[in-house]
Amino acid sequence: MNRERTQALLDRVASGELDSAEAMRQLALPDTESLSFATIDHHRALRQGFPEVVFAEGKTVEQVLAIATHLNAGSEGFLITRVQPGMWAPLADCFPQAELHKLGRVAYLPPESPPAIAKGTVLVITAGTSDLPVAEEAAVCARAFGGRVERLTDVGVAGIHRLLSRGEQLQSAAVIIVVAGMEGALPSVVGGLVAAPVIAVPTSVGYGASFGGIAALLSMLNSCAAGVTVVNIDNGFGAAYAASRIIHR
Amino acid sequence: MNRERTQALLDRVASGELDSAEAMRQLALPDTESLSFATIDHHRALRQGFPEVVFAEGKTVEQVLAIATHLNAGSEGFLITRVQPGMWAPLADCFPQAELHKLGRVAYLPPESPPAIAKGTVLVITAGTSDLPVAEEAAVCARAFGGRVERLTDVGVAGIHRLLSRGEQLQSAAVIIVVAGMEGALPSVVGGLVAAPVIAVPTSVGYGASFGGIAALLSMLNSCAAGVTVVNIDNGFGAAYAASRIIHR
Amino acid sequence: MNRERTQALLDRVASGELDSAEAMRQLALPDTESLSFATIDHHRALRQGFPEVVFAEGKTVEQVLAIATHLNAGSEGFLITRVQPGMWAPLADCFPQAELHKLGRVAYLPPESPPAIAKGTVLVITAGTSDLPVAEEAAVCARAFGGRVERLTDVGVAGIHRLLSRGEQLQSAAVIIVVAGMEGALPSVVGGLVAAPVIAVPTSVGYGASFGGIAALLSMLNSCAAGVTVVNIDNGFGAAYAASRIIHR
Amino acid sequence: MNRERTQALLDRVASGELDSAEAMRQLALPDTESLSFATIDHHRALRQGFPEVVFAEGKTVEQVLAIATHLNAGSEGFLITRVQPGMWAPLADCFPQAELHKLGRVAYLPPESPPAIAKGTVLVITAGTSDLPVAEEAAVCARAFGGRVERLTDVGVAGIHRLLSRGEQLQSAAVIIVVAGMEGALPSVVGGLVAAPVIAVPTSVGYGASFGGIAALLSMLNSCAAGVTVVNIDNGFGAAYAASRIIHR
Amino acid sequence: MNRERTQALLDRVASGELDSAEAMRQLALPDTESLSFATIDHHRALRQGFPEVVFAEGKTVEQVLAIATHLNAGSEGFLITRVQPGMWAPLADCFPQAELHKLGRVAYLPPESPPAIAKGTVLVITAGTSDLPVAEEAAVCARAFGGRVERLTDVGVAGIHRLLSRGEQLQSAAVIIVVAGMEGALPSVVGGLVAAPVIAVPTSVGYGASFGGIAALLSMLNSCAAGVTVVNIDNGFGAAYAASRIIHR
Amino acid sequence: MNRERTQALLDRVASGELDSAEAMRQLALPDTESLSFATIDHHRALRQGFPEVVFAEGKTVEQVLAIATHLNAGSEGFLITRVQPGMWAPLADCFPQAELHKLGRVAYLPPESPPAIAKGTVLVITAGTSDLPVAEEAAVCARAFGGRVERLTDVGVAGIHRLLSRGEQLQSAAVIIVVAGMEGALPSVVGGLVAAPVIAVPTSVGYGASFGGIAALLSMLNSCAAGVTVVNIDNGFGAAYAASRIIHR
Amino acid sequence: MNRERTQALLDRVASGELDSAEAMRQLALPDTESLSFATIDHHRALRQGFPEVVFAEGKTVEQVLAIATHLNAGSEGFLITRVQPGMWAPLADCFPQAELHKLGRVAYLPPESPPAIAKGTVLVITAGTSDLPVAEEAAVCARAFGGRVERLTDVGVAGIHRLLSRGEQLQSAAVIIVVAGMEGALPSVVGGLVAAPVIAVPTSVGYGASFGGIAALLSMLNSCAAGVTVVNIDNGFGAAYAASRIIHR
Amino acid sequence: MNRERTQALLDRVASGELDSAEAMRQLALPDTESLSFATIDHHRALRQGFPEVVFAEGKTVEQVLAIATHLNAGSEGFLITRVQPGMWAPLADCFPQAELHKLGRVAYLPPESPPAIAKGTVLVITAGTSDLPVAEEAAVCARAFGGRVERLTDVGVAGIHRLLSRGEQLQSAAVIIVVAGMEGALPSVVGGLVAAPVIAVPTSVGYGASFGGIAALLSMLNSCAAGVTVVNIDNGFGAAYAASRIIHR
Repeated sequence: MNRERTQALLDRVASGELDSAEAMRQLALPDTESLSFATIDHHRALRQGFPEVVFAEGKTVEQVLAIATHLNAGSEGFLITRVQPGMWAPLADCFPQAELHKLGRVAYLPPESPPAIAKGTVLVITAGTSDLPVAEEAAVCARAFGGRVERLTDVGVAGIHRLLSRGEQLQSAAVIIVVAGMEGALPSVVGGLVAAPVIAVPTSVGYGASFGGIAALLSMLNSCAAGVTVVNIDNGFGAAYAASRIIHR
Repeated sequence: MNRERTQALLDRVASGELDSAEAMRQLALPDTESLSFATIDHHRALRQGFPEVVFAEGKTVEQVLAIATHLNAGSEGFLITRVQPGMWAPLADCFPQAELHKLGRVAYLPPESPPAIAKGTVLVITAGTSDLPVAEEAAVCARAFGGRVERLTDVGVAGIHRLLSRGEQLQSAAVIIVVAGMEGALPSVVGGLVAAPVIAVPTSVGYGASFGGIAALLSMLNSCAAGVTVVNIDNGFGAAYAASRIIHR
Repeated sequence: MNRERTQALLDRVASGELDSAEAMRQLALPDTESLSFATIDHHRALRQGFPEVVFAEGKTVEQVLAIATHLNAGSEGFLITRVQPGMWAPLADCFPQAELHKLGRVAYLPPESPPAIAKGTVLVITAGTSDLPVAEEAAVCARAFGGRVERLTDVGVAGIHRLLSRGEQLQSAAVIIVVAGMEGALPSVVGGLVAAPVIAVPTSVGYGASFGGIAALLSMLNSCAAGVTVVNIDNGFGAAYAASRIIHR
Repeated sequence: MNRERTQALLDRVASGELDSAEAMRQLALPDTESLSFATIDHHRALRQGFPEVVFAEGKTVEQVLAIATHLNAGSEGFLITRVQPGMWAPLADCFPQAELHKLGRVAYLPPESPPAIAKGTVLVITAGTSDLPVAEEAAVCARAFGGRVERLTDVGVAGIHRLLSRGEQLQSAAVIIVVAGMEGALPSVVGGLVAAPVIAVPTSVGYGASFGGIAALLSMLNSCAAGVTVVNIDNGFGAAYAASRIIHR
Repeated sequence: MNRERTQALLDRVASGELDSAEAMRQLALPDTESLSFATIDHHRALRQGFPEVVFAEGKTVEQVLAIATHLNAGSEGFLITRVQPGMWAPLADCFPQAELHKLGRVAYLPPESPPAIAKGTVLVITAGTSDLPVAEEAAVCARAFGGRVERLTDVGVAGIHRLLSRGEQLQSAAVIIVVAGMEGALPSVVGGLVAAPVIAVPTSVGYGASFGGIAALLSMLNSCAAGVTVVNIDNGFGAAYAASRIIHR
Repeated sequence: MNRERTQALLDRVASGELDSAEAMRQLALPDTESLSFATIDHHRALRQGFPEVVFAEGKTVEQVLAIATHLNAGSEGFLITRVQPGMWAPLADCFPQAELHKLGRVAYLPPESPPAIAKGTVLVITAGTSDLPVAEEAAVCARAFGGRVERLTDVGVAGIHRLLSRGEQLQSAAVIIVVAGMEGALPSVVGGLVAAPVIAVPTSVGYGASFGGIAALLSMLNSCAAGVTVVNIDNGFGAAYAASRIIHR
Repeated sequence: MNRERTQALLDRVASGELDSAEAMRQLALPDTESLSFATIDHHRALRQGFPEVVFAEGKTVEQVLAIATHLNAGSEGFLITRVQPGMWAPLADCFPQAELHKLGRVAYLPPESPPAIAKGTVLVITAGTSDLPVAEEAAVCARAFGGRVERLTDVGVAGIHRLLSRGEQLQSAAVIIVVAGMEGALPSVVGGLVAAPVIAVPTSVGYGASFGGIAALLSMLNSCAAGVTVVNIDNGFGAAYAASRIIHR
Repeated sequence: MNRERTQALLDRVASGELDSAEAMRQLALPDTESLSFATIDHHRALRQGFPEVVFAEGKTVEQVLAIATHLNAGSEGFLITRVQPGMWAPLADCFPQAELHKLGRVAYLPPESPPAIAKGTVLVITAGTSDLPVAEEAAVCARAFGGRVERLTDVGVAGIHRLLSRGEQLQSAAVIIVVAGMEGALPSVVGGLVAAPVIAVPTSVGYGASFGGIAALLSMLNSCAAGVTVVNIDNGFGAAYAASRIIHR
């Protein structure tokens, strides 16, 4: 039960539309639920504004479907990241209304009462075409968390004029997520151009001494542009979540 | 010339108090200034809201004093981080009004027109006593950037009740900076308890397999609490800057 | 020949049920046995209480079956870890009475005289659903070594109330095995809550800067909760063995 | 207030020697105490059997003395590890009754009601002479936590007969702490010889590719002797704490 | 043309059996031969006693067959290591007399005049069954280079009596190759028991913090047994070559 | 539009062959072009002399074909590196005139006005046969960038006479690209023999402690031969580009 | 004897000014010279155009002075890098005409016949003030090798306008050396703006996850701007040498 | 008691010069001796031919002197490596006959009956002047172990003619120790030139990406010259010991 539903329930009690006993019953549902292989944290939506998100990697199809079903009880929807190749078909079968974002590996079933849309734009920038899957994960998740999302693609620093020509879009964003692999220099340049919070996402794009994204990660952690913060390699979801914490503040 | 001063100047032109030619002259000062060993970016305060900050490590006393003097031209003050042991006395001599925060290794001379104070509190949490210097750097910088700062000290996860008993303070913060060395677990716990943005600062506190803060850094990058973002090891300043980008949004 | 069988044999000699010559013959079996590709250590069960355990990874099906057969000579059973996908069917064919634990990748054939059950519970805790295979390896092995096993699943620190609500179970355990991937923070929290020995098992669950479990491993080695000890990444078996050394003390 | 004192207090109430109101007052002391730079966890002794231990590295002399004074309030003593060179004299001045173990860098002031002595011996083995400081830290701490301690020194695997000739001592120990640098092979050999729990402590002794103890640490984590657990590099204290958790079980 | 053939040719000239012009012609063959994808070093056998050895990994079947054919011109045979799965059949077709050692991944066609057999035994010891492929590579190559080879298998340090019971075999070896994965402790123990040269071969056997053999490699480089030398991970061939340099001295 | 075409166009205007309005129109084409998944930098050819090169790894076949089509608009050709196995057929279908270099994984469609051929030879040296794919990438790209290319193959330092016998070829080269895996020693030897610029390319050829090319990379960065510069592991393209910057100077 | 002197000598023979016997004598000086602790390579100047350069780190003052004296025999001068603090005074005493560049840690005594000045400028760019010592080493060495040197200081990517405003200087350089620490992004931006060869020098400037320059090194190796080559961390000398190889081509 | 003394004693018994009871008494001395901080292995000289060697790093002056005194009992001398700066004077005072090799950091007191001199030369080659301390450690130790030692200094691969001109010396050596830092290429070149065993010693000479010797170490482990074996970074002693095992075979 997320904040929107709780607020609505309280409003109905206040207006006499719902009696307090029934409201009590609905609120009294346990805030954790124990499956044999998972302990679902139903309380999270109230505590943090967004319900628990399912990380599908390392789970079986059966586990993912079961957790999704439990989360969606009460029509609260679900958000699943890192969907594995064999999971698309079962998800489509069980949840025909769910959005399946294959590029970003995300499955999303909006709740009946979606979160309020925050003011301000979340701008997702990518350095190169190969960074798109991670950027797409970030964009889909940010929207699910109630954000307006814009995209700016393939504007890496080797052709800096591609970025500089988009000054207005950069200045108007409320939060910027910069997704880059290889040397990961883009967040430093963006961070030096704007006043908004910048969240850097290193990707595993590259080869040789990129070490699966470590080069980009280190670049971003050592950014000479002050105040750039960083999430894990390929963690588009995490960047979206952090951006949502910021815009819902 | 920061945003506050520029706004004031424009107001004085609007009110007829200042003629536009003189305003033009003041605004027309070059936005970079070349010393033999540095190129000062005077434009940053306008672009990003805060003036350039001096990182004293690896610079000579003479370089630091010269840069500070140029930054302070027009009474715009300065903020110097990582002040080295031998620099305190010369700084005190040249800038008797400057605040010298030895624990946090920060020297701060407030500008005549300090930045507006943002709404919302920046809460700086430390896991242990040895993390205090980094936390202090964060706290002093956050205040210089126009933040209200609170502190919560030595509440690491080995005695989790110390943290849990401060629920209200956690819930009311606008942004939380969590400073932790050793295994760096504290940001994950905090990130799971609140809805506000959480910025994690790994410290080099520890020994052996802490590898000068790498253990804490990796912990924070892999946090199971979604949306925790991370800055470089011991980078209290960077966390403060990121927090300021958020609260001034 | 394990301790239980040796003790039984000595008892039968003492009671006159077995003559000493025959006992001598049984005890005189060589304590190592050389196959062309392995030297089996039959003495281990007497020396350490548990017979040699077979690590199946990197061995051929034929080698595993041959070693299992030799270990099981005299109905002493066997315990095989890291069973590879193609080995289940041959194992089921050759040893129809063996327990095949596919999730934990363990095959177990109990000896005719199983080890005595120790006093005190071994509690196996996991941070997330994806840590289950390693936890299951630990649980099955701990039982094979004569432990009573309880499980507590998916109680990671991002929702700390899931763990705190199980205080009694935590306090009553004789030894606790904590299995966690990602940032590996859970053992620090558990280690701060209980007085019992805590054995931490990092898992390779995670991505990016988790580096196949290194992040969790380093977290656990740097735990701020004193006295947490650590085994290798994904080494559920090792944790179970260590727990068994403790409860059989 | 540790377990022994709490038990004594309850006994005096039971016998009528102390009235319950006064007992209440003594028990009602807050379980955390906030200094400006530390939050002392007075509850730990009750929860875990041993009071909080002070890690002196990275703290100032003043901080260490202040924390020690607060811990010792009520004559509960203190245990300080990693005492820095300049701290010996001030500690001797303030706490003339404290034991100062310079080789192990430990300062210990026993509480008035020391913890009960556990059954079984803690055997501390070192591979070489250079490992002695870490071993001594382990030995002093283990004794402070109520253990009987024996030592076996400089019996590394390059002259394996030195170890093998001490079989009886090895067999009789309740827990064994093995301290080794360089290639860290000793715990594997010991772990193969005994049934007792073995805690391995890698040390930073070595040079070149020992990488400050990483070689030994990795050796121990990969031990082919099942059930060896590991603590951080040079963490004699942690090994002692883990051993104490085991023997007080 | 290796040393044996050159010596034989010179002997025939000395005895008048061969005229010097013909000998000249045979010796005058160029000592390198350029294929489009390789420059064959025919001079190596004279310079170092053994002909060039083919490393098959990363080469195509066609390249391997072509190089083998050129090396074998003049019936000088060849030795191919790291033979890839798809290469066995073509090798068997082209060179029906070649020995195909699948476990060790070595194909060997002895030259018509094989190298003289050196005095003294090369003893190849393995810590575990999974180390056998590397040990087999070492054993086959050592024999090809003119060594007498003995094997001692699965005598790792977790059951040290398995090794100690073979003292005579250890003492009588001229050179010892010790092959071990996991913690790589065996060479240290062996190095402490014998006076002969000990060559340590780390293997990639293990998991988690074994890091594909790094743990064993570091152990061996840091061996407390003086004078143990080390070759690359899984480099059985290199160990055999080094052993051959020693016994042919 | 590259430099050659721009120069030709300006010449035609100067000669009256083309009127300036039409020239303007042709030059006025936007210098970036936004696809949904890429922002093409058409300006690069003018700025740097060579058009944008497509890195195919991590892109879909569709993306690669679309980008190639856009780049080739105006018959400016394209150069694609790291062509993936499934891309050869579609490329051959769409661009039958393109050269497909499978060993080097490069697809090249020459522009109608190819770049001028620079003076001086680019010599590509490889240490071993397994380094050929990277060397071939370098050779094909260097030719596409207007270089004359020579090759010297399999002349690694284990048979140094193979290299020394080619002194004249070494001395006459304008730039030398040295491609080597394993210990990467060859660039140091070459760098000590010649006065020309030497660009070292580490390859991922090797095993064990070569760590996918890190050993060779570190060797080259630490070369005792002054002035050797290095590109990323397996980056034949980058070396060719750097060589072209030099010879077109 | 460098190329200039050899050419002059041959000219004097050609003109009859010098008889060939004396010329022979001068040319016949041995090309290596053995001191007890060094083998001086006098041939290098002829072979590569520049004489051997002395790396002072790890050498004693006596060794440096002796090598400098031998190199300077015949007034050929010397170039010493990484001069250690205690070496300035003795160098000044022995070689009063030598230039002592303390910021760049270089001592330079020009030869009587200095190398010809090459056409084209070597532009040395630094990202920050703290990178100056390495940049200065590069600049002094490049001049000693016959280059014209320009400098552009403190133009890091956090204020990209500082760099972009210097377009003409960037375009006119023959070779560009870019010196940067922290995230090392500057060479990528520069490499995308110019057609000239770009040599990137990572510096050890930074802290925490910069790992003494590794972050910058990896950034540069993974540069998305094609054709940037890299030298070792802090290796200003190496960059200068490589630049000289290019401009003297 | 080493092999030479034991042989001499047996000879005297055989000749009647010594009665067997006294011989028995001398031989019956215990083969280990326990000091409070060390367990001396007197048996090693008999088992391996050389007595225990003292590694002084990490030991106190008092410990070193005490161990040296115990080793020298019976005039068996001692060999101490890694002598620390403050130890020279006390060693000179206590053992005026000892040789103090400050460059190699070795103190050596020859036994009354020194080990027999082996046939064949140990050739110690260094790449550069800065590698001399490690080479000197190797040379002094090799002599102490009964080897004839030759030296070849500063013949690194950047001037390969310095090495190639010494072909005869290379060919005549029985064992070659190659000491090199930086890129560590020298052992590969030497290993390709000779048939003798080659032991490579990486040194910590270098900077930046040499990582304290790791670059050289990896180079040597990946040597393309077959049969090169490697010891730890800076381990001149270990190389000498290995060489001695070979020449005394």
